[in-house]
Amino acid sequence: MIAEILAVGTELLLGETVNSNAAYLGQILSENGFNVYHQVTVGDNASRLSEALKQALARADVIVLTGGLGPTADDLTRETVAQVLGRPLNLDPGVLGEIEAFFRRRGVPMPENNRRQAMVPAGALVIRNRKGTAPGLIIPEGEKTLVLLPGPPFELRPMVEETVVPFLRQRYPGQPVLVRRILKIVGMGESQVAELVGEFFSLSNPTVAPYARPGEVHLRLAAQALDRAGALALIAPIEEEIRRRLSGYVFGADEATVEAVVGELLRQRGWTLAVAESCTGGLVTSRLTSVAGSSDYLRLGAVTYALATKIDLLGVPRDEAERSDGVSSRVALTMAQGIRRLAGATVGLATTGYAGPTGGNDDDPVGTVYLAISGPGGDRVERAWFPGPRQEVQARATQEILARLWRYLVDWE
Amino acid sequence: MIAEILAVGTELLLGETVNSNAAYLGQILSENGFNVYHQVTVGDNASRLSEALKQALARADVIVLTGGLGPTADDLTRETVAQVLGRPLNLDPGVLGEIEAFFRRRGVPMPENNRRQAMVPAGALVIRNRKGTAPGLIIPEGEKTLVLLPGPPFELRPMVEETVVPFLRQRYPGQPVLVRRILKIVGMGESQVAELVGEFFSLSNPTVAPYARPGEVHLRLAAQALDRAGALALIAPIEEEIRRRLSGYVFGADEATVEAVVGELLRQRGWTLAVAESCTGGLVTSRLTSVAGSSDYLRLGAVTYALATKIDLLGVPRDEAERSDGVSSRVALTMAQGIRRLAGATVGLATTGYAGPTGGNDDDPVGTVYLAISGPGGDRVERAWFPGPRQEVQARATQEILARLWRYLVDWE
Repeated sequence: MIAEILAVGTELLLGETVNSNAAYLGQILSENGFNVYHQVTVGDNASRLSEALKQALARADVIVLTGGLGPTADDLTRETVAQVLGRPLNLDPGVLGEIEAFFRRRGVPMPENNRRQAMVPAGALVIRNRKGTAPGLIIPEGEKTLVLLPGPPFELRPMVEETVVPFLRQRYPGQPVLVRRILKIVGMGESQVAELVGEFFSLSNPTVAPYARPGEVHLRLAAQALDRAGALALIAPIEEEIRRRLSGYVFGADEATVEAVVGELLRQRGWTLAVAESCTGGLVTSRLTSVAGSSDYLRLGAVTYALATKIDLLGVPRDEAERSDGVSSRVALTMAQGIRRLAGATVGLATTGYAGPTGGNDDDPVGTVYLAISGPGGDRVERAWFPGPRQEVQARATQEILARLWRYLVDWE
Repeated sequence: MIAEILAVGTELLLGETVNSNAAYLGQILSENGFNVYHQVTVGDNASRLSEALKQALARADVIVLTGGLGPTADDLTRETVAQVLGRPLNLDPGVLGEIEAFFRRRGVPMPENNRRQAMVPAGALVIRNRKGTAPGLIIPEGEKTLVLLPGPPFELRPMVEETVVPFLRQRYPGQPVLVRRILKIVGMGESQVAELVGEFFSLSNPTVAPYARPGEVHLRLAAQALDRAGALALIAPIEEEIRRRLSGYVFGADEATVEAVVGELLRQRGWTLAVAESCTGGLVTSRLTSVAGSSDYLRLGAVTYALATKIDLLGVPRDEAERSDGVSSRVALTMAQGIRRLAGATVGLATTGYAGPTGGNDDDPVGTVYLAISGPGGDRVERAWFPGPRQEVQARATQEILARLWRYLVDWE
C-alpha cells in the first residue's frame, strides 16, 4: 500500500515553521507497512491544494493531509477536500458541542468563526481533538482513505497513535510492520564499531546501519514482519550478538540517554553526585536534572566560572589556578575533589576548559577541555579537544564527561 | 518568479531526517522575492525523481534540488537531472582535484566512488563545497534555473548565501526583497500586546503579526520593497511607534535573547550575578553561560536540589526548609540571599518549586515555582504556576526568572 503526505500551510512554504509532522508521519506510516513515495507541501490556496490532492488520489492509497483545519478564512482543507470528493459539508452537532465545551473550560465564549470547524464532509469519521478545537477526519473513499489532521504536532500525534494507525491497520490488514531498535554506544568511534560488527551491515532483514551522533554511535536495527513479535524475533539474535561484541560500550537502547542510565546506576548503588562546571556552564547539571527523580542522587551542581570561586569555594590551589588561568588537569581534579567534599557526595565531577570564541593559548587552544572524576573508584582526569563553535564545544564536553562517568560506574562493578 | 523546492532522499520519507532545508530555502527564497508554491520530497528513486522534476519544470522558474549528490549508487540527483535535461555528464578535473585535496587533508586516500561527485552536466556552474565533497551545481536551462545542493545543512547554507542568492538576484533582477524584523516582548501576554498595537495588524506593507512564544510574545514586521534599504524604511516608523507603545516591554529584536540582553546590562553596570537553582536544575545557569563572555559577570551558579545543601551551603533556615520541603517563598528568598552572599555577587537569583511529575501538594501543586531576586534594587519573590510536563515547567520557569531579572535591571536605572 502506498501513502502520501500532503501538508497545507503558507507558513511551511515561507519557512516560518519546519514541517516536523512530515517526518513523524513518514516514520509511523513506514513502520506500519505503508510505502511513502511523496511528501508534498502547498500553501493556503484552494486551487493548488485541489490539484495536489487529485494527483495524490491518482497515485496513493492513503493520503494524510495536515494543516488548514483552523477557524479562519485561509483554512481551506476541509472545504477543498469536500469539493474534490464531491461530498457536502454538514454541521455536526456533536463536534460543535465539543468545541463549545473547549471554550467553556477556558471561560471564554466561542468565537463565531469556530463553527466552521464543526463542518464535516458526508461519510467522514470524526477524530476527537483533546488538545484543541479542530477535529481530525477520516474519509473512506472507495478503497482509498483520506485522513485530515490539524497542524500542531501535540494535537496531531495523539490522533495518529490512538485512532489513525488502528483504523488503517484494520482497514488494510496483513500489512507488514517495521520495528526499529537503536543501540547506543559510547567510548568507541564509528569505524571501530564497523570493524567489530560491520559484517551485519549487509543483512537485509533486519537491516543494521550505523549513525554517528555527537559523542555517541547509534546502531539502527530494523526488521519487517507480519507483526511486532515476528519483527522483534528477527532482531533479537542479531542484537544479542552485537551486544556481546560491543560489551561494555552499549549504554542503552531506543530512548535511553546517558544521563538517565547514569542516574539509574547511581541510584542502584545508593551513591550521590556533585558537579563543578566551568566551561560547560551548567549543561552537565541540566542534563542530569532533566531526568525525573534526579534529586535523589544529585546533591549539588555548581558553575564556577570565576577564578575566585574555584579557589574560595572548591579549594583549588591559588598558585595553580592563577598560573593556568583556571584551565589545567590539576585545576579540574581539585575542582572534582572540592565539589565532592563541599557537597558530601560519593562522586565529584568537574569540567574546565576553553569553550571559545576567545581564550586559549598555544598549549591549550580553544576547544580544549579537562574532565575530572573523583570517587570510590579513584581519581581520573583527562584532556580532550573538540572543534567547533562555543555551543558545540560545550555540548561535546558535556556528552563526554557523562559518557566517562558511565564508564566509571560500570568499571567499578 | 516562482521557485520550487525538490528534496531527494528516502531518509526524509522514512522520517529519519527532518527536512529543515525546505524551511530554510523557503525563507531565503521568499525573502528574495520568489513565490514558493510547492515543496516536494521524493526518495532515492530515478523514475519518481524524474517525474517530479518534469512537473517542477512545468510550473516553476527556479527549481532547487537538495540531496542525492553523495558518492554512493543510491545518490541519483546528478544523473537524473542530466538525463531529464538531455545533457551529457563530463568529468570536471577541477572538481576532482578539490575532492582529492579534501581527502588528502584528512590523510586518507579518496575512495573510487567519490569520482562520481566530479561528474558535471554540460553547461553547469560549479559551486565549491568548503565543508564536504559534493559540489553544488547551477544549471541555466533557457529562462529557468536548476540549482542542485548537497543535503547536509552546513554544506548547503554557505552555498546558498554566498553563491546561489547572488546568482539568482543577478539573473532575475528587479525582484522585490522581503525584510523581516522580530520585536521580542516579555512581561505582557499576546492579548495585551494586541490591545496596544493591534491596529497595525491590518497593515499590508509592512505586515505586523504577533506570535506567542514560551514566556515571550514576538511581533513580526515584514516589508517588501525593491531593495533592503527601501524595506527597512517602511518598517522603521512602525517599529518606532510600536516600541513607544510597548515601552519597557520590548527587550530586543531579531536574534536577541533575554540572557544576552541581561548579560549586557550586567556588564554595563559592572555587576556580578550568582544563581541558586532547585527545580530549574541548571537551566538558568546554562542559558546565561551560553552567552560568550558570560564569565565576566556570572560568579557562581549552583543547583541545590538537596535540602541539606540548601541549609548548609545557602543558609536557608532549617525549620523553614523542612516544614516546606524546600518549596516556599521564604526558601526562594533565602536561597537568593544566600547564593549572593556565598559568591560575593551584586545580584542573587533563586528558583525552587515542583517541576514534576511527582511532588507538590494541595497548596503548591506540580508546576508551582517560586522565583526570587536579591540585589541593590531590593528583594523580590514571586510565585508562578506553569502547566505541562517536567521539561516544559523547567523551561518556562527559566524563561520567567530571566525575564524578571531583565525587568529588575531595567527598573533599577
